[in-house]
Amino acid sequence: MSDIDISTSKPVSTFRVRYSETDKMGIAHHSSYVLWLEMGRVEWLRSKGLSYRELDDGGVSLPVSSLNVNYKVPADFDDELDLYCELIEAKSRRFTFSYKLVRKDDNAVLVTGQTVHIPINREGQVIRCPSDWLEKLR
Amino acid sequence: MSDIDISTSKPVSTFRVRYSETDKMGIAHHSSYVLWLEMGRVEWLRSKGLSYRELDDGGVSLPVSSLNVNYKVPADFDDELDLYCELIEAKSRRFTFSYKLVRKDDNAVLVTGQTVHIPINREGQVIRCPSDWLEKLR
Amino acid sequence: MSDIDISTSKPVSTFRVRYSETDKMGIAHHSSYVLWLEMGRVEWLRSKGLSYRELDDGGVSLPVSSLNVNYKVPADFDDELDLYCELIEAKSRRFTFSYKLVRKDDNAVLVTGQTVHIPINREGQVIRCPSDWLEKLR
Amino acid sequence: MSDIDISTSKPVSTFRVRYSETDKMGIAHHSSYVLWLEMGRVEWLRSKGLSYRELDDGGVSLPVSSLNVNYKVPADFDDELDLYCELIEAKSRRFTFSYKLVRKDDNAVLVTGQTVHIPINREGQVIRCPSDWLEKLR
Repeated sequence: MSDIDISTSKPVSTFRVRYSETDKMGIAHHSSYVLWLEMGRVEWLRSKGLSYRELDDGGVSLPVSSLNVNYKVPADFDDELDLYCELIEAKSRRFTFSYKLVRKDDNAVLVTGQTVHIPINREGQVIRCPSDWLEKLR
Repeated sequence: MSDIDISTSKPVSTFRVRYSETDKMGIAHHSSYVLWLEMGRVEWLRSKGLSYRELDDGGVSLPVSSLNVNYKVPADFDDELDLYCELIEAKSRRFTFSYKLVRKDDNAVLVTGQTVHIPINREGQVIRCPSDWLEKLR
Repeated sequence: MSDIDISTSKPVSTFRVRYSETDKMGIAHHSSYVLWLEMGRVEWLRSKGLSYRELDDGGVSLPVSSLNVNYKVPADFDDELDLYCELIEAKSRRFTFSYKLVRKDDNAVLVTGQTVHIPINREGQVIRCPSDWLEKLR
Repeated sequence: MSDIDISTSKPVSTFRVRYSETDKMGIAHHSSYVLWLEMGRVEWLRSKGLSYRELDDGGVSLPVSSLNVNYKVPADFDDELDLYCELIEAKSRRFTFSYKLVRKDDNAVLVTGQTVHIPINREGQVIRCPSDWLEKLR
C-alpha cells in the first residue's frame, strides 16, 4: 500500500473534530473518519482544478466501491487534524485514493485509509470517466 | 401545542439507540433525535397507507421548514425507545407533525417535538400536496 | 427573537457542505444544520477565550434543552457557508444562543435558529455555570 | 475471507434505510453502512446473551481498529435490509466480525465487510477481554 510522506506533502484539509463526531467512548466515532476522507478527496480534486460538484451535477458520480480504514490513535473532540490525500490509481473505470490523518499538535498518525471509486452515470451504470478529468487527474 | 396522549396511542416505531448516536457526554447526541423524528413520520405515513418513498420518487418532497425539539430526559446507548407521532395540521401547502419519544423501560418522556413541512417539486418550488394524499392524511 | 445583523458581525465559522451532509432531495439534510450550529457555538466560545473542551473535560457540560430551526433556503453540496452566532441570554443555569447561516456566494440567509442550554455535571445534575465562565460570557 | 452463508444463518437485524442515511446520489451514503455494521454486532452479541452496554459501562470497550467494506449494490431509501453478522476470530486481545447486508426484497447482497476490534479500558490501554465474555463468544 502506498504510504503518504507527510514531510513532502501538504494537507488537503485542516479541521477540528466536532462534538457530534464523538461517541460514548469519549473519542471520535469510527464512522466520522469516513466522512473526513470524503471531504478530503473533494478538496484534493479542487486542488487539481477539478470540481466534484460540477462532475456530479453533470451526471457522473464516483461512488465508493471499497473502503479500508486502519485506526491507530483516536482523535478527541476539538483536536485539530491535518488530512493528507493522494490519488494512487487512475484508470478510466477505477480510481484509488490513499489517505493519512495526522493530529496537528503532536504529528501522531491517527488513521490511514484507502477508497476505491467506480464512475457511474445517473442510471447507476458504470461508465468511463470523462477524458478531460482523467487527463487532469494524471 | 398539541400533546400526544400515549395511553391511547400506539408508537409508530420502536427502536434502540445506536452507539454511533451517542456523544462524548455518554448520552444520545441531540441531533440523533432529529433523525428519529424523521423515521417516525415515514412510519406514521406508512401506517396510513402512504409511502413517502413513492411520493418522493414521484417528484413531491416534504422538506422540513421548521423544527422544534424539547429535550427533557437523555436517552442512553441501547435504550429501547417508543416514538409517537401525530399529524396535527394538514393544509395543501403545510403539514405539521407532533412527536413524543418515550423510554420503554420506565415510560419517561425524553423528548417532545414538532416539524412543519412544505410540499415542493423537483425544482424546489412550493406546490399543493397531491389531493389523494391530502384526503388520506385527513 | 433576536436577529443577528450580519453587516456588523463576523462569522464564527466558514465551511463547505460535505457530500455526506446531503440527502436524496439533493440538498443538505435538515439535521446537518444542527451539527453546524453546534460547531458554531464551540467556535463562538473560542472567540471569547473559552474552550468548551476544557469545560467538558472538567466535568461541566452544556447539553441542549431546546432546539429551534427555521429553514428558508436549502444549502447545496459544496456551498460555502458563513455561520453567525450570538449569545443572547446568559444566566447561571441557562444559556441561549442565536444563529444565522448565510451562503457566502449570494448572501442568502439559509437558516436561523436558537438553542437553549442547561449546565450539568458528570452525574447529569443541573448546576450553576462556573463563575469565571459566566463573567467571560457576559 | 469468511463468507457468511445466508441460507443457513438468521439476520441479526432487519431495518429500513432512513431518509437521513441517503445522499445526493439518491442512495444510501457509504458511511451509513458503517453505522449499520456496528448496530449489527451489538445485536449479534445480544443474541449470544452478551450486552455491549454492560461491558462498556463496566469500563471495557471494543473500538474498531480496522474497517473493510465492499460495496456491491446500492441500498435505496426505505429498502428493508437484513444484516448478517458472524464472529470469525476471538482472541483475548483481538476480535474480528464479518458482515453481509442483504436486501429483503430481492436477496441482493449489497455489502460485505469486516471489522477488527481491540479491547481497551477506560484509559484507552489495550487489555485482555474478560474471560467470561471470551467463553460465551467461543
